[in-house]
Amino acid sequence: MARLSRSQRPAGLGGISVILDCCEVYKNPFCRGSRPTLKGISIVISPSVATKTGVTAKRAFNFNAGPGALPLPVLERIREELLDWRGSGMSVMEMSHRSKEFEGIIADAEQRLRGLLGISEDYAVLFLQGGGSMQFTMAPMNLCLPGKPVDVLHTGMWTAKVIAELKKGIPHHIAASTEPEKFTRVPRTDEIKFSPEASYVHICSNNTIEGTQWHDMPHAGSAPLVADMSSDIASRAIDVNKFGVIYAGAQKNLGPSGTTIVIIRKHLAERADKNLPTLLQYRTHIKEKSLYHTPPTFAIYIVGLVLEWLESSGGIAAMEQRNNTKAKLLYDLLDEGKFYSGPVEKSSRSKMNVVFRVAGGDEAIEKEFAKQAEAAGLVGTPGHRSVGGMRVSLYNAVTLEAVEALTSFMREFQRTRG
Amino acid sequence: MARLSRSQRPAGLGGISVILDCCEVYKNPFCRGSRPTLKGISIVISPSVATKTGVTAKRAFNFNAGPGALPLPVLERIREELLDWRGSGMSVMEMSHRSKEFEGIIADAEQRLRGLLGISEDYAVLFLQGGGSMQFTMAPMNLCLPGKPVDVLHTGMWTAKVIAELKKGIPHHIAASTEPEKFTRVPRTDEIKFSPEASYVHICSNNTIEGTQWHDMPHAGSAPLVADMSSDIASRAIDVNKFGVIYAGAQKNLGPSGTTIVIIRKHLAERADKNLPTLLQYRTHIKEKSLYHTPPTFAIYIVGLVLEWLESSGGIAAMEQRNNTKAKLLYDLLDEGKFYSGPVEKSSRSKMNVVFRVAGGDEAIEKEFAKQAEAAGLVGTPGHRSVGGMRVSLYNAVTLEAVEALTSFMREFQRTRG
Repeated sequence: MARLSRSQRPAGLGGISVILDCCEVYKNPFCRGSRPTLKGISIVISPSVATKTGVTAKRAFNFNAGPGALPLPVLERIREELLDWRGSGMSVMEMSHRSKEFEGIIADAEQRLRGLLGISEDYAVLFLQGGGSMQFTMAPMNLCLPGKPVDVLHTGMWTAKVIAELKKGIPHHIAASTEPEKFTRVPRTDEIKFSPEASYVHICSNNTIEGTQWHDMPHAGSAPLVADMSSDIASRAIDVNKFGVIYAGAQKNLGPSGTTIVIIRKHLAERADKNLPTLLQYRTHIKEKSLYHTPPTFAIYIVGLVLEWLESSGGIAAMEQRNNTKAKLLYDLLDEGKFYSGPVEKSSRSKMNVVFRVAGGDEAIEKEFAKQAEAAGLVGTPGHRSVGGMRVSLYNAVTLEAVEALTSFMREFQRTRG
Repeated sequence: MARLSRSQRPAGLGGISVILDCCEVYKNPFCRGSRPTLKGISIVISPSVATKTGVTAKRAFNFNAGPGALPLPVLERIREELLDWRGSGMSVMEMSHRSKEFEGIIADAEQRLRGLLGISEDYAVLFLQGGGSMQFTMAPMNLCLPGKPVDVLHTGMWTAKVIAELKKGIPHHIAASTEPEKFTRVPRTDEIKFSPEASYVHICSNNTIEGTQWHDMPHAGSAPLVADMSSDIASRAIDVNKFGVIYAGAQKNLGPSGTTIVIIRKHLAERADKNLPTLLQYRTHIKEKSLYHTPPTFAIYIVGLVLEWLESSGGIAAMEQRNNTKAKLLYDLLDEGKFYSGPVEKSSRSKMNVVFRVAGGDEAIEKEFAKQAEAAGLVGTPGHRSVGGMRVSLYNAVTLEAVEALTSFMREFQRTRG
């Protein structure tokens, strides 16, 4: 089935073309043996997927902030292997984490991530638990040096949580904050005042709630940069060598919730007091290759599948390009007129989480927007409960088609309600 | 398809009857709509499952110590709902943890566990991360009172890990230890010397590695009993009211790895210093109903399905009876002669993990045993790497048929090698 060019697609809310043949969309051989087939031009937005197993599944366009959309071919593969992983007679969930099968699965996931992000052997790649929030505690526990504060670049609710944990007794310094601007941008270089000698510098590369993103990473000097990349890891090219630690909950760009990727320059793990709880020391997990205790095996397996899909889709560079295209579609619409408006400064706009208001922030209309969107199969448009408004997340697994369906919906909503 | 009576089944290694119609075996309506069908009397032990979706899956008999076997109808249900959970258009993995759908899923899992184990409203039921190992740190962090030691009943490698964490600065007292007996039994009541005033008493209800189990819980007086039930939760009736805290990694009897069940008497959570890391305070998770941060959503969903399956299978009492029957089959075989021998004292034998030696502990023959067993579709028979020998785990999801297949294999192995 050939992919329709944009000009071939019927316009308007009722005529979104739904293309769910992953092999067509991603031009890759990933979903071998279980290709969902194009069901034809749908008159509703919500697509259905028919597979060779005869199961038809309704699929929403998913703009959730995380956990969020997963690539359809990954879900298909999970389903295919669920009762019997590659002839083992077991689901991956049923395997011993010390079996050669699972050791292969976790090593494979690590190698794929190393290849995609260009991670050298100076770094360990760990699969932990507890999400970014656990790292807010583990990072200072492991990395603080006596008399040297933690520098924080304060850009929103997630860095506020980091600061709240540091306030429990760890010297720290706010090196920059855009709180006076209500976090509608990230700090400019000339606003950042690093400590002379910091233990490390904390940065949140993408602020899920505020819809901002660092497009140029600051130079922290000799202090290691510790980045919470939970919501934009693997969405764009980065130079890992500029960081001391990168961590990310998997549930936005890399897989399901339940595992946390930690990429750490190995020697930094040696800073930690050996009297810390064993499970909270990075060195434990480096030494045991994330198998000190039972890891979240199924989540790690899925991360491996997502990374395989990423490779087959052209790698990080191709993904970044697609993410730029997707974000541009939405930001162009915000810039068109006054019905939709984005509060974020253009230079700090996030490619992952687009926040906007409808009709000048009229809450009744925004509620109606979310309701109608959901009815049209567009899930997850309301903003974070703490800030209101709308937010759509454009993680790697969100297709261009989904964003086109959304912008069509938005135009139609504006036409009837604007 | 009627279930074969034992007398109808062909005897010997080559003639194990494989019954995989879950609705027949469990006499329950759980696996609605996707019943695997009996493929006939197989001449190999490894069964295949054919489903209405046309997918045939090889299924091993799985004796892994954890992660271990999951109920086949649960895996079938996961597969059925993988792309579209009950019309939502999303996999459970893709849902926001703050959506009404997921809030329903986690509340449902909690209610089922409360019902099955008889957990009153005095207790909170939490779904955390980090496994039992994280609890070895969280329990003392939260529950220690000034000047009052933690009493430990030392019964093997898992309690040794608890002691190792306590040694990092928390006053503690070994109230009993069977280390001199190489942990081949749990302590007798008259051997236990509790502290006059303990912060709490730690017990490991079932020792996975050593193959021992507490069949009568000790009376700890006024000190709360904190039980690591990772490997026997929901396998037998217990009186929750006798415990201050019960915790268990899900990956043995309740689901996949990646979530940890904590059942805690609510007032105990108030002992903790509010300056502890937020994520490591029980009170945080009680207050936020396990949604303080993104929980391992998919693992929790599966725990809910396993609990539903447990209910449909007759609840804890029926499961305990089946577990007794399964364990008796194996222990009776160990007691028959000298080729197989169990090191554990009869009164402390675990119903979950049966450890034994083959041919007096001849390592070459034991290696051969494991190899031939695996070739016959019996996975996971080698003992823990620290103690050697053999170990078979008989968690709830291990069927009577699997144990019968194993004992048939063992008799045949003894006939040829004994």
